[in-house]
Amino acid sequence: MNPVNELDWGARYRSVRALGVAIAELFPLEDRLLQAMPQASPIKWHLAHTTWFFETFVLRGSAGYAPLDERYVSLFNSYYNSVGPQPDRAERGLWSRPTYAEVAEYREHVDEAISSVIERLDTPALERLELGVHHEQQHQELMLTDTLAGLYKNPLEPCAVPLQTSHAAPKAAPCPLRFRAFTGGLVEVGHRGHGFHFDNESPSHQSVLLPFELASRPLCNADVIEFVEAGGYQRPELWLSDGFDWVRSSGILLPCYWSNTSGEYRHFSLHGSLPVAPEQTACHLSYFEADAMARYFGARLPTEMEWEYAAGHVDKANLRHAQWLTPERWLPLPARDEHLSQMFGTVWEWTSSAYCAYPGFRPSAGAIGEYNGKFMHGQYVLRGGSLASPQGHVRTSYRNFFPANARWQFSGVRLARDVR
Amino acid sequence: MNPVNELDWGARYRSVRALGVAIAELFPLEDRLLQAMPQASPIKWHLAHTTWFFETFVLRGSAGYAPLDERYVSLFNSYYNSVGPQPDRAERGLWSRPTYAEVAEYREHVDEAISSVIERLDTPALERLELGVHHEQQHQELMLTDTLAGLYKNPLEPCAVPLQTSHAAPKAAPCPLRFRAFTGGLVEVGHRGHGFHFDNESPSHQSVLLPFELASRPLCNADVIEFVEAGGYQRPELWLSDGFDWVRSSGILLPCYWSNTSGEYRHFSLHGSLPVAPEQTACHLSYFEADAMARYFGARLPTEMEWEYAAGHVDKANLRHAQWLTPERWLPLPARDEHLSQMFGTVWEWTSSAYCAYPGFRPSAGAIGEYNGKFMHGQYVLRGGSLASPQGHVRTSYRNFFPANARWQFSGVRLARDVR
Amino acid sequence: MNPVNELDWGARYRSVRALGVAIAELFPLEDRLLQAMPQASPIKWHLAHTTWFFETFVLRGSAGYAPLDERYVSLFNSYYNSVGPQPDRAERGLWSRPTYAEVAEYREHVDEAISSVIERLDTPALERLELGVHHEQQHQELMLTDTLAGLYKNPLEPCAVPLQTSHAAPKAAPCPLRFRAFTGGLVEVGHRGHGFHFDNESPSHQSVLLPFELASRPLCNADVIEFVEAGGYQRPELWLSDGFDWVRSSGILLPCYWSNTSGEYRHFSLHGSLPVAPEQTACHLSYFEADAMARYFGARLPTEMEWEYAAGHVDKANLRHAQWLTPERWLPLPARDEHLSQMFGTVWEWTSSAYCAYPGFRPSAGAIGEYNGKFMHGQYVLRGGSLASPQGHVRTSYRNFFPANARWQFSGVRLARDVR
Amino acid sequence: MNPVNELDWGARYRSVRALGVAIAELFPLEDRLLQAMPQASPIKWHLAHTTWFFETFVLRGSAGYAPLDERYVSLFNSYYNSVGPQPDRAERGLWSRPTYAEVAEYREHVDEAISSVIERLDTPALERLELGVHHEQQHQELMLTDTLAGLYKNPLEPCAVPLQTSHAAPKAAPCPLRFRAFTGGLVEVGHRGHGFHFDNESPSHQSVLLPFELASRPLCNADVIEFVEAGGYQRPELWLSDGFDWVRSSGILLPCYWSNTSGEYRHFSLHGSLPVAPEQTACHLSYFEADAMARYFGARLPTEMEWEYAAGHVDKANLRHAQWLTPERWLPLPARDEHLSQMFGTVWEWTSSAYCAYPGFRPSAGAIGEYNGKFMHGQYVLRGGSLASPQGHVRTSYRNFFPANARWQFSGVRLARDVR
Repeated sequence: MNPVNELDWGARYRSVRALGVAIAELFPLEDRLLQAMPQASPIKWHLAHTTWFFETFVLRGSAGYAPLDERYVSLFNSYYNSVGPQPDRAERGLWSRPTYAEVAEYREHVDEAISSVIERLDTPALERLELGVHHEQQHQELMLTDTLAGLYKNPLEPCAVPLQTSHAAPKAAPCPLRFRAFTGGLVEVGHRGHGFHFDNESPSHQSVLLPFELASRPLCNADVIEFVEAGGYQRPELWLSDGFDWVRSSGILLPCYWSNTSGEYRHFSLHGSLPVAPEQTACHLSYFEADAMARYFGARLPTEMEWEYAAGHVDKANLRHAQWLTPERWLPLPARDEHLSQMFGTVWEWTSSAYCAYPGFRPSAGAIGEYNGKFMHGQYVLRGGSLASPQGHVRTSYRNFFPANARWQFSGVRLARDVR
Repeated sequence: MNPVNELDWGARYRSVRALGVAIAELFPLEDRLLQAMPQASPIKWHLAHTTWFFETFVLRGSAGYAPLDERYVSLFNSYYNSVGPQPDRAERGLWSRPTYAEVAEYREHVDEAISSVIERLDTPALERLELGVHHEQQHQELMLTDTLAGLYKNPLEPCAVPLQTSHAAPKAAPCPLRFRAFTGGLVEVGHRGHGFHFDNESPSHQSVLLPFELASRPLCNADVIEFVEAGGYQRPELWLSDGFDWVRSSGILLPCYWSNTSGEYRHFSLHGSLPVAPEQTACHLSYFEADAMARYFGARLPTEMEWEYAAGHVDKANLRHAQWLTPERWLPLPARDEHLSQMFGTVWEWTSSAYCAYPGFRPSAGAIGEYNGKFMHGQYVLRGGSLASPQGHVRTSYRNFFPANARWQFSGVRLARDVR
Repeated sequence: MNPVNELDWGARYRSVRALGVAIAELFPLEDRLLQAMPQASPIKWHLAHTTWFFETFVLRGSAGYAPLDERYVSLFNSYYNSVGPQPDRAERGLWSRPTYAEVAEYREHVDEAISSVIERLDTPALERLELGVHHEQQHQELMLTDTLAGLYKNPLEPCAVPLQTSHAAPKAAPCPLRFRAFTGGLVEVGHRGHGFHFDNESPSHQSVLLPFELASRPLCNADVIEFVEAGGYQRPELWLSDGFDWVRSSGILLPCYWSNTSGEYRHFSLHGSLPVAPEQTACHLSYFEADAMARYFGARLPTEMEWEYAAGHVDKANLRHAQWLTPERWLPLPARDEHLSQMFGTVWEWTSSAYCAYPGFRPSAGAIGEYNGKFMHGQYVLRGGSLASPQGHVRTSYRNFFPANARWQFSGVRLARDVR
Repeated sequence: MNPVNELDWGARYRSVRALGVAIAELFPLEDRLLQAMPQASPIKWHLAHTTWFFETFVLRGSAGYAPLDERYVSLFNSYYNSVGPQPDRAERGLWSRPTYAEVAEYREHVDEAISSVIERLDTPALERLELGVHHEQQHQELMLTDTLAGLYKNPLEPCAVPLQTSHAAPKAAPCPLRFRAFTGGLVEVGHRGHGFHFDNESPSHQSVLLPFELASRPLCNADVIEFVEAGGYQRPELWLSDGFDWVRSSGILLPCYWSNTSGEYRHFSLHGSLPVAPEQTACHLSYFEADAMARYFGARLPTEMEWEYAAGHVDKANLRHAQWLTPERWLPLPARDEHLSQMFGTVWEWTSSAYCAYPGFRPSAGAIGEYNGKFMHGQYVLRGGSLASPQGHVRTSYRNFFPANARWQFSGVRLARDVR
């Protein structure tokens, strides 16, 4: 890691921290306390935990730093066993204290302390600060997806943020889906060069790819409707065994947040309940669904190596169309052309690769080594970032990961297939 | 039922409604949203549901009433199937909308409507209004016990309301426990006369009581400590079979909210974590614990018939010592004398009587008939009211009921025994 | 208790013991090992546990008795904490050893030992022997109901014992249901006199009964079909709240063992799958169903006091029609007349009485005191015995008890109602 | 696939079928019915299901074949949705019918039919017959591991098969563990050539391996004891996050079947309870434990590619020491030398590779395509076969797979490490 100089980092730090608060304040206080399920957390907790990260990994041990409340060391620890025990994550929504105002005070306390030390941080500390900034960006995306999951529990289907007409999706036929061919061969994958990256993106290494094809765009809602109406959710031959057990025992017949009670497909969003727009990029799909849909369309999911290799070929113009996190519109745009469209910043794209260590992987030293490595079980890699990923956060080599039944992220499907 | 005239009921209505809000406002907004478990509800919900009760059973159908929001008919219905379906009660804490401010607006809307119609309500409607007032009082007690359960989930053990020194418990040896003898015989139980009562208190009827003795006071914390230290929680011979399965599988070794991590018994309360005061009346005990403690002390629990019969002999002076709901002090006082002390307004007292219909019981007609009768399974009767019961709410014939493992109410134990 | 003389008891012992083996041998070995659910046990276990009872409570401590295998003390202990810890009852079906042949050897070992000491047993020991005989009879009924539950798990719907045509139910219209009036008053209930009885039937005591009416016969299958077809299982107003939660969450739409996949009501039995005969007495109903059906028919369940009082008026001729345990026919006969028919030996009849201690109840001393008292929670009393109860086992004062959702016994419904 | 000629297959078929019955008959009938958990099945079921496989995939549709019982098509279907629905696998132990004797009759019926058609089977049918033989061999191993799991539920810790002294493990110090270096590079993995293999072993393909080292032998019990006594089961830094949650929530402090109640390590086996022999190869370890132990010893697990590449270098002499399935001894032998010892036929060795499709993988056509592909989620690959694998069944390219918490197989750990 090679952090930029401290002046830049001061500005970057302040900007990222401000965005977190700005997102929180889009919602009334009651929304900021919601925890829909153990895997999701309230906005208030995200704001406190990201603060805790800086306090623990940058400020602790720094001369003259006095914590605001010693009890926060444990309360806002997510999963760092080296730092100490953690309370039950499933009950984060039940911690009414500290209040939101007290958490805001905690943020200010830490922000001031960072401000007063940032100029004299040594390189390792600055690297941890940089990690903290990226960590906070990850939680900004989760603040949105977790709150969406929480609002969905409400029988009133509240509209958290009104969708302005100017942002409404253009009504148009879906862009045709084409397959783009790649030759593969012995390719280099993983992060190279000097910029920031997480430990799980390294070391870069060689991998053998057979020739393959990748779809020009992710599946759109029209594709999903075709799958639904072909009985896709009830046909075991399309599913992994665990996947079919899951849909059957959970009674799943539609994508997450979708409904169809009176002949119209609708989906719940941060803009409330909306009709499903056929041309929009499909999202909130699990790995199991992605895999079944791929099989239905006579294709398969790409491996993460294939995805990364292909992403190296994306036209820069495509990147300009990425949505990235903007507070006014939280729906994945449709594809705009038949090139490799929307590889970044629309929906996280499931790959068929189980999340595992790259050859020669070494976790970072100390507690920060718990960041990635210990989660290398039971998850699949997703690539490319979503509309809720903050701008500047995602790279070609970036590896996100979720379990095969996770649906509450902005996650979608891009097809791949072998060349015969 | 024979409701008093409408002028009195207007004042009574306003006073009870105001107390609900006053209790809520003792807590910061974050606390008012807590739901610790499916059986408990957030303060915000209690405030809305009690309002719904008046809207549904008094205002609906009344000429000129326009509801604030039609969706509240379903959202704030607790369990009245005749009114319509209800959302999952376990998720009440996840309904961030309507916000607290919107619920306050709902209360005002209904209060104004009641105020405008109260003078012309017919007798059945006025009886439903009276029931609504008692219903709201029941929920006032639950607002406290449910919020205590919610705050207990917080690893910080917050002090919701500071305990003023002047209200601290007097330090003194526990009052001696004496047994008072009653002759029994063919006695009349159940509600008689004209005042308000719930349907489950009627009809009054005869019951045969053998001679029995009742303890002069409920068990105090010193008694409970004796039970704990005699290994009471680990001795199966003291327990009902289901009760022992429950403590063993739940790892229960102390009363609810108690801890002893460093040689000192402490308990969590609305005043935060406090040392256990030996002379204080013991509370937050389940039926299973009450029954086991009675067996340990060579006694048994009274039947609800014995309790009611004995309560008819309580000195009126005793009633003056009842605590009833006061916002400053939420700890059960110790007994003051060796007469039948604290039969009312300290802790709900478990009886050995399974909650069932009195002979000839008829539920009220219509949806209000769901108030009591359909819960006559799997619960035991408690008598006497607690420190959190609003003044004027509890009667000698009043039957509260909870399952045998419920511990989050202010519930305690009064011993009884046979005369040999 | 006043056991008869030892000669009679030797014969009684041998006869009851032989019946247990005879029942077991109706089934192939594979069936004798089935445990369908934690509450049920395999035939092999029943045969061993009843043997354990005699060994533990009659032979242990008797001079010269050497146990066959010391490890059986723990293995075949059901729930006697005073005797020692017990293995997990849910896994009884997984104890392949001792084999069935070894359990048969264990029975012979104990039978021989009993035979050699029976003439010199003192009165307390003889009373425990008598209790053991009644205990074994209770398990004989369970051998049948538990095995039926086990066979029902088999997709092949095996016919355990062929139904001989001569035993098939007579085809006839159901006997009309009449209500018989009883005056009640101050009545005596509980066991009086010298014969054997369980501790929970005593002491006899007075109870006040209002005038009431009792149905001339239990509900028959035609009545149940009427309830089903009136949508009874889906109408919440007919059910206790817990009961409706139970049917809804369990997806229950028919009585236990019933099906209707192609327009025909069928039920599974020890004779395999059979058409539902309308005139046959309905069975395998839970308390929740019994209570809901009573409400549907504008009636209620009797209290156990009412049942016992009415049972004192049953014509002796009626008793001759009881079925009692016969290995050839395990279907409850239809009622034969409009008097108080089938009070005994057809189906256990649910009462509305929660199972609790009679006033002045004292459990027996020692481990045998665990027989009944510790189960006085969460159960309802059933009266009268069923077609699977061994002859001579059931009395007017006999109290059986099961939880409100238990359906695998031969349990049915007799209606009662108030006199207005 | 290229099945050998029909004469050889007749003999091979008969020999494998006979071995299944021989294994079953080592146990009394009661043992053959045990199902300890949903993932395990009774011996009786294994005998029937393997028969069903031949009936379904070889005999059905063959002219003149008449099934013994049409209902077995569904009853003994394990997971082939294309064949039809399957009953709940968790209840296989509850199907007392068909009896064991009836299953034996079913086996004979199918064996005779196979015998009469084998000479005229076409190549595809002969290939399915060959698959059926390998399928039966897989189930032979499961018959042992599943029955061991069942016997372990017995508090008596029965000895299923006496361990003859001549087969007892030699008492000796564990063989030293050395690391053997491999250069890697661009290597070929997967099955090549003409012999039988499962679809998941193909297509063979290239993979890039960095230089690595592999341990000369699997971990032995002395190694495991070192891990246990260093507190390995309680140190989160050694575990995957899901792994640590699993051991903590399950209370796991020792390998499966181990105990240490009085200072002595003992383990349960098909020979009953035995002292843990330090030099014996450790087994019944989950992936989570294997991974944690590797981390404790400063190493990692090999990838399946590394394992397969290294296995190509195993001295043929080593293969002679493999134990393979012999009915007299079911304990994994200690290593004999410091070469690559025991790569085959002692314990299945966990690899770090999530079970997934090889590049270009195509499942077999038809129902048989459900054999492997649909299980490519949530499992890890194991290699090499165990002492319970039948001789001739396992290949270098053979991929077994189990979830990360599976412990009831004969599964162990071979360490690997990077070359720095």
